[in-house]
Amino acid sequence: MSQKIKGIGASNGVSIAKVFKIEETKIEINSNKIVNVEQELETFRSALKKATEQVEKIKEKALLTLSEEEASVFDAHLLFISDPSIIEPIEAMITTDNFNAVYSTDVVMKQKIEEFLAFDDPYFKERAADIKDVASRIIKALLNIESVDLSEINEETIIVAEDLTPSDTAQLNKKFVKGFLTNIGGRTSYSAIMARSLEIPAILGLGNITELVENNDIVAMNGETGIAIIKPTEEEISTFKNEYENYLNYKKELETFLNKESKSKDNKKVKIASNIGSVQDSEGALKFNADAVGLFRSEFLYMDAENWPTEDEQFNSYKAVLEKMNGKQVVVRTLDIGGDKTLKYFKFPEEMNPFLGYRAIRLSLDRKDTFVTQLRALIRASAYGNLAIMFPMIATVDEFKEAKKIYNEVYEQVKSEGYEVSENIEVGMMVEVPSAAVLTEQFCKYADFVSIGTNDLMQYTMASDRMNEKVSYLYQPLNPSILKLIKMTIDGAHKAGKWAGMCGEMAGDLNAIPLLLGMGLDEFSMSSTSILEAKKLISEIEYSKAHKLVHQALKCDNEFEVKQLLDQFKKENEIL
Amino acid sequence: MSQKIKGIGASNGVSIAKVFKIEETKIEINSNKIVNVEQELETFRSALKKATEQVEKIKEKALLTLSEEEASVFDAHLLFISDPSIIEPIEAMITTDNFNAVYSTDVVMKQKIEEFLAFDDPYFKERAADIKDVASRIIKALLNIESVDLSEINEETIIVAEDLTPSDTAQLNKKFVKGFLTNIGGRTSYSAIMARSLEIPAILGLGNITELVENNDIVAMNGETGIAIIKPTEEEISTFKNEYENYLNYKKELETFLNKESKSKDNKKVKIASNIGSVQDSEGALKFNADAVGLFRSEFLYMDAENWPTEDEQFNSYKAVLEKMNGKQVVVRTLDIGGDKTLKYFKFPEEMNPFLGYRAIRLSLDRKDTFVTQLRALIRASAYGNLAIMFPMIATVDEFKEAKKIYNEVYEQVKSEGYEVSENIEVGMMVEVPSAAVLTEQFCKYADFVSIGTNDLMQYTMASDRMNEKVSYLYQPLNPSILKLIKMTIDGAHKAGKWAGMCGEMAGDLNAIPLLLGMGLDEFSMSSTSILEAKKLISEIEYSKAHKLVHQALKCDNEFEVKQLLDQFKKENEIL
Repeated sequence: MSQKIKGIGASNGVSIAKVFKIEETKIEINSNKIVNVEQELETFRSALKKATEQVEKIKEKALLTLSEEEASVFDAHLLFISDPSIIEPIEAMITTDNFNAVYSTDVVMKQKIEEFLAFDDPYFKERAADIKDVASRIIKALLNIESVDLSEINEETIIVAEDLTPSDTAQLNKKFVKGFLTNIGGRTSYSAIMARSLEIPAILGLGNITELVENNDIVAMNGETGIAIIKPTEEEISTFKNEYENYLNYKKELETFLNKESKSKDNKKVKIASNIGSVQDSEGALKFNADAVGLFRSEFLYMDAENWPTEDEQFNSYKAVLEKMNGKQVVVRTLDIGGDKTLKYFKFPEEMNPFLGYRAIRLSLDRKDTFVTQLRALIRASAYGNLAIMFPMIATVDEFKEAKKIYNEVYEQVKSEGYEVSENIEVGMMVEVPSAAVLTEQFCKYADFVSIGTNDLMQYTMASDRMNEKVSYLYQPLNPSILKLIKMTIDGAHKAGKWAGMCGEMAGDLNAIPLLLGMGLDEFSMSSTSILEAKKLISEIEYSKAHKLVHQALKCDNEFEVKQLLDQFKKENEIL
Repeated sequence: MSQKIKGIGASNGVSIAKVFKIEETKIEINSNKIVNVEQELETFRSALKKATEQVEKIKEKALLTLSEEEASVFDAHLLFISDPSIIEPIEAMITTDNFNAVYSTDVVMKQKIEEFLAFDDPYFKERAADIKDVASRIIKALLNIESVDLSEINEETIIVAEDLTPSDTAQLNKKFVKGFLTNIGGRTSYSAIMARSLEIPAILGLGNITELVENNDIVAMNGETGIAIIKPTEEEISTFKNEYENYLNYKKELETFLNKESKSKDNKKVKIASNIGSVQDSEGALKFNADAVGLFRSEFLYMDAENWPTEDEQFNSYKAVLEKMNGKQVVVRTLDIGGDKTLKYFKFPEEMNPFLGYRAIRLSLDRKDTFVTQLRALIRASAYGNLAIMFPMIATVDEFKEAKKIYNEVYEQVKSEGYEVSENIEVGMMVEVPSAAVLTEQFCKYADFVSIGTNDLMQYTMASDRMNEKVSYLYQPLNPSILKLIKMTIDGAHKAGKWAGMCGEMAGDLNAIPLLLGMGLDEFSMSSTSILEAKKLISEIEYSKAHKLVHQALKCDNEFEVKQLLDQFKKENEIL
């Protein structure tokens, strides 16, 4: 009999294939002391060497199937294996406390993982997964446990595992690996991100899938619905094959949007842009033919560094992205640090409510030196493409004017030093503080554009820390109060003759797009992978009807009513 | 030669008199150990007895010049002197660690003071000042140091001191004490509050006034401007006397407003109400003839208790206030705890941003039992006056509807139990979360009224913790963004046919009142002592002109421009 199970659909696609189960050797770690310190150190160092060789080999293979950017994760792995801030404490535990190498590695690496997770930032979460991966590799090398080599799979399979490490995922050969199912993980876990990038269907968080299936069982899976069927019947297989057909057709249709203009059914043009967090991310923006980069987070330059990044270091990164984007606008957001994001080399004040504290532009205006360094790097890079700059967390017109004044001074200074600079840098601001949303018209007397940051805007508008599970029910992007502030922002910008974009998660949310289009949002900036779906959806909507929809939505009492309206709208307008 | 100095004007009035300087004996506290524990305990207990007698005597005298409410502070002192949570740890330090009684008293009392200050709540700040006062009294008793008896002053003097304790202040005889000047303290310190209550002019925070003057020096002081002149010239004295005349006339004029209706020059009627924090505070509301109690904070019942207050305890307090207010509306706010306000008997979750967390109505809806207890007490009390109830921190219409549903159920239940209940309880909400401000019209489909809480509204709208000095510059009540949200709230309520009040600090701010009047605010709720000035100001403003002023203000870029507009408005309309 077949068995139907449901997990978290993490990467779209349908597959039917037999199971290849990765069974991890259970590793028991004890805190036994060792006698011969020199010998243990020797063992540890050979394990490091072995791990290094493995990673180099995986990287080589990965380069055959992955982009250079995607394979670059293994450079990070190599760095961790040789990072003194990791290796030295491990060796110290062996030398000073006579702990065994396995235990020492486990303790130190776990600490490091905790440190990275504490940032609660997607970038650092990925790094934490990398360290976990490296830790497991070193420990296996110490214990002479061989890992399964996934790159050697040579027939069509669906991989089933507790979890997949970055190394596992990077080695998957798309030709043979038709999907994967794991016990743990969610849509934002590393394996989910990689699955989407490799376009391999994936269902995560299935709980006990490793117990439910045996090697060579046939499994049918739909990575969109999160449904998998173990030992499907003929009928179920045919249903799945139909779904697969539909999925392929949908994908083919999506691809037709790659080179189409972004516009509504009744020809209202909009810009569909990418949010990126690193130079490498611009490849995704190019791959999906984004109209622009609507948000380039500059934090990675700071959070990844051991000290304030220099002007030249920053200049090189900005220049690289601008050149890659080849004339398309790149909106760089100046340093948005503080709140939950800290720096290794800067002591933030102790704050009772860091989200309501010293962060982003407040810090830049207070520490003018670092702000000026960033602006200098940006202005120098402006010669290499179409640069725009925006300031985060602006709450008052005076703050914007002060930041703009510093910008102007720096601009004149850089120019007077003989650098070539663009004459057309747009200087705008994030709207993520409610005060800016209600007063956008005034701000746009001075700002060239605004970009709405929905996560923070929602957090402040609802007075609810979105990371606090006690009040996370107040995270309601479609609540009429949020919609009203967004509309006020867009209307305010337009009244002042400026454009309004959105670079928060909401811009790529298929539920929100009809409303945002109806409000006249000019630029939707999202994850590159969401671009085609967004373009397709916009092409199916009549702006004039969406505009009316907005007025109805603003009269709703709550998010539920708005969602009902949207469902009805989609039905009436035959939008899928 | 005369010397002019400036401090913080803390209590209005002008005086010219000679100096009476309180010089505190410097007490050196050492942590020496004692040998005879029994003897030290004996000494400590006699000191407690002496302190008790002193306080009882002071209380007796205080009752001659102060109201019962004001003199009740000494009941608190008596309680502290016998509080086991203070006395027992002191005795334990003496018994177990053999510390001397002075040191033990100092350590334990300082801890207690810290505990109270940690609440960052005016009520607890006052209590902290009381404990400090008691501590100093016990330590002086232990060391046989006699305090100056201020009640024995029998000629006109201005008192100069480092600071004044509650005991000092309560003993001041208005007949002879014509003012006081202190080195430390601010407008909200206990001595400032008492000075205003006693109507004795006071200038605080003068830094080193105790060093600048000698006993019997003549000083002229103006408690409004914060200016004092040491050894004034004849001319300066005559200027001060003129100022004094003007001040007296102003006071006399203010008193004429006591029984006048609250209305603008062109007869737009408004309500001027009191904010109160305890049953006793209602005396102030009556004294200044408030039209209503616009905010009765129910926190004192909870924060002062050792366990959740029972239904009957709460009922008695609500009933007492309702009876005192004798038919005037009393708006009770349900428990507004969390954020910076905690309870001794309830463990709040660890939160990264408590101001964006589990507080106020969020807690009440989550802990339905305590919410129901409070509602039962309120509904039972409703038979004894004109009760209204409002819920704090409402962010979504659903939250209000849920709270109202519980209210309705409890109302029916209480009624079915045979209690007499009012048929006309208005049930409204605080508007202090931006989402509620932008959507007030929808909320008012269900709420009978709204009351704007400006401190929190400002804090969230600006995304700035007002207690964080790094970002306190964003505390801008007159910023056009704040004004716009207030106007949206009032307009929203009126569109739905409901009334809008304000119970935040801003309602009593003479700068804000012209704008709030112009926006059509229906009820201004403030400290009772601000009522007459507010009534006078409103009587001088034409609503129609103020209405136009609002439209200009909303077009301003910043608070500075709004203030300029206000100055011009006052000048043009000859408002003082």
